[in-house]
Amino acid sequence: MTLVNVTTPGGNYPIHIQSGRLGALDTAIPADATAIALVSNATVLARYGQRVRQALGRTGKPLVEVVLPDGEAHKTWQSLNMIFDELLQNTLDRKAVLVAFGGGVIGDMGGFAAACYMRGIRFIQVPTTLLAQVDSSVGGKTAINHPLGKNMIGAFHQPISVEIDPAVLATLPPREISAGLAEVVKYGLIIDAPFFEWCERNAGALRALEPQVLTYAIQRSCELKAHVVSQDERESGLRAILNLGHTFGHAIEAGLGYGAWLHGEAVGCGMVQAAELSADLLGFPRADVERVRSLIEAIGCPTVAPDLGRDRWVRLMGNDKKVQGGSLRFVLMPRIGEAVCTDVDAAALDAVFQRTVGAGV
Amino acid sequence: MTLVNVTTPGGNYPIHIQSGRLGALDTAIPADATAIALVSNATVLARYGQRVRQALGRTGKPLVEVVLPDGEAHKTWQSLNMIFDELLQNTLDRKAVLVAFGGGVIGDMGGFAAACYMRGIRFIQVPTTLLAQVDSSVGGKTAINHPLGKNMIGAFHQPISVEIDPAVLATLPPREISAGLAEVVKYGLIIDAPFFEWCERNAGALRALEPQVLTYAIQRSCELKAHVVSQDERESGLRAILNLGHTFGHAIEAGLGYGAWLHGEAVGCGMVQAAELSADLLGFPRADVERVRSLIEAIGCPTVAPDLGRDRWVRLMGNDKKVQGGSLRFVLMPRIGEAVCTDVDAAALDAVFQRTVGAGV
Repeated sequence: MTLVNVTTPGGNYPIHIQSGRLGALDTAIPADATAIALVSNATVLARYGQRVRQALGRTGKPLVEVVLPDGEAHKTWQSLNMIFDELLQNTLDRKAVLVAFGGGVIGDMGGFAAACYMRGIRFIQVPTTLLAQVDSSVGGKTAINHPLGKNMIGAFHQPISVEIDPAVLATLPPREISAGLAEVVKYGLIIDAPFFEWCERNAGALRALEPQVLTYAIQRSCELKAHVVSQDERESGLRAILNLGHTFGHAIEAGLGYGAWLHGEAVGCGMVQAAELSADLLGFPRADVERVRSLIEAIGCPTVAPDLGRDRWVRLMGNDKKVQGGSLRFVLMPRIGEAVCTDVDAAALDAVFQRTVGAGV
Repeated sequence: MTLVNVTTPGGNYPIHIQSGRLGALDTAIPADATAIALVSNATVLARYGQRVRQALGRTGKPLVEVVLPDGEAHKTWQSLNMIFDELLQNTLDRKAVLVAFGGGVIGDMGGFAAACYMRGIRFIQVPTTLLAQVDSSVGGKTAINHPLGKNMIGAFHQPISVEIDPAVLATLPPREISAGLAEVVKYGLIIDAPFFEWCERNAGALRALEPQVLTYAIQRSCELKAHVVSQDERESGLRAILNLGHTFGHAIEAGLGYGAWLHGEAVGCGMVQAAELSADLLGFPRADVERVRSLIEAIGCPTVAPDLGRDRWVRLMGNDKKVQGGSLRFVLMPRIGEAVCTDVDAAALDAVFQRTVGAGV
């Protein structure tokens, strides 16, 4: 088993990475837990429910299942309230433990429910998508969407552990593998140039889910994310670099309607746009813009952004959480492996839109 | 001006107590705030809105007003969402500051909105009821109600300051003064016997809002609450003693429907019930039960509990947050000025119901 430790003011916790980990989930439940709330969706439960129920059953603790509707469009207060209803109807108390078993949507909602239920109960992340395994399950960010913006309502609430079973990725649609790989590439871009190069060399093996290559990508991504989060749990500084490509990406997701593009796809495309903007403003080498574009393409993500209309682009980016005092804030790269946060005047974006937005998209 | 400091892992902050403090609220707004969200209700704004707007206006910062419906019955997700809608429509960012200006309901909802908006923004408590001034505005507990229980969904989120203007209490209905005094008496009962005796001597002056007596009661209550909260921000131990009377009280509130009794009234009555239970189980002197009953009566709170039906009483108390693993948990007193948390078998409650529940209530 591979172990990565996360250290934050909000708590220290382990990430366990192991093929077959689902069958050993009982070992992750604290002895003093009064009950377990298993929060998941029908797709995940149909495939892995029995294995997980069997493992959790070995704890002898009461198990309450909450089955949420699937997809980003359901990351709403209504879904969140389904969790609260179920937990309260079963009179789960403050010593209950919530297990968020699914992709990023389940992790975000399960985590936020755990953050708010009785002002906070413990929870465990069991991510079943590549994107959740390498990104959203680590670091304690939880949230739901608001009609006016993605992840606008949420909390920083650290899990007590993250349990990753890479074997579950075998049943994931190829599009979701590609979307997850975008976040893997992101770590290389913002903080680890050799890892970016490793991704360039292994793009094919990653898409083919070659086990050792995949496990290393997950481990390295978790290590890099843990490193950043350890230094800045609440995104007051360094952590913001994890948002490379996200200002563009969120605009794409909001502009097309949540769920049209996968989050990772939008971020992948957004990283190409951020590279272009970095070239214009920070002297990021043009040749490296092409390396970014090629790698995003190689992992199977779109590199041509949708035509939302210039003003709508800017407005959607302006509603993003990372706005400060009205100016647009971007994560940009001086070079591969290094990232900075910069305020950008909207006028500077026009050239980027020209080079990255496809009229027919 | 009287200053009380609160020290918690979640942040240190001052409580300022001063007659006329409303007119100086601008001094509480941090220089780097990008905007101010004033969250209040129509009653409070009609009376003090102009004075507060004028004070906050001196900061030169954009001011967004959110007017919420009044009363415990509106401490819901729907009201909370009105805050989110307004803040997002006005594109308030993470550096905005929320000012919760009103009673406990406004403080709880404003605080919870600040805890969740973009995963947490700063907020200031400006409590306008006695109960909020001596209790709910201090300590960082925020929440909304759920149909299945009071304050079930919430967060620990400390304000950056608490601004108390005792002069506003002059316009408060006498019932609300009485309800607030119940929490004042509570501090004496759980942690400060001399203060309990001081309350006995000054019950009349307190109800008459004698300025110096009232200000001392607020100051001492804030000091005692700050003392408890400093040692146990998240209610893992000591802080639970602040819930004296609350298990009974919450059942009264839920059983009659939120708003029928004021929170402080329910807690006042609940403290008489807790004293009775303490006499049965911990040898709390019977004569002191009568002192508690007399003082609760003297401050104008009910001392006879409503007849919810025995099973309903127990069920409603069982749904209270303080339940652990199925057993009923109460704050009880071995003597005045000392409190402990104890698991109690439901059978032990019957005698208390007989002595405290009025058939005709």
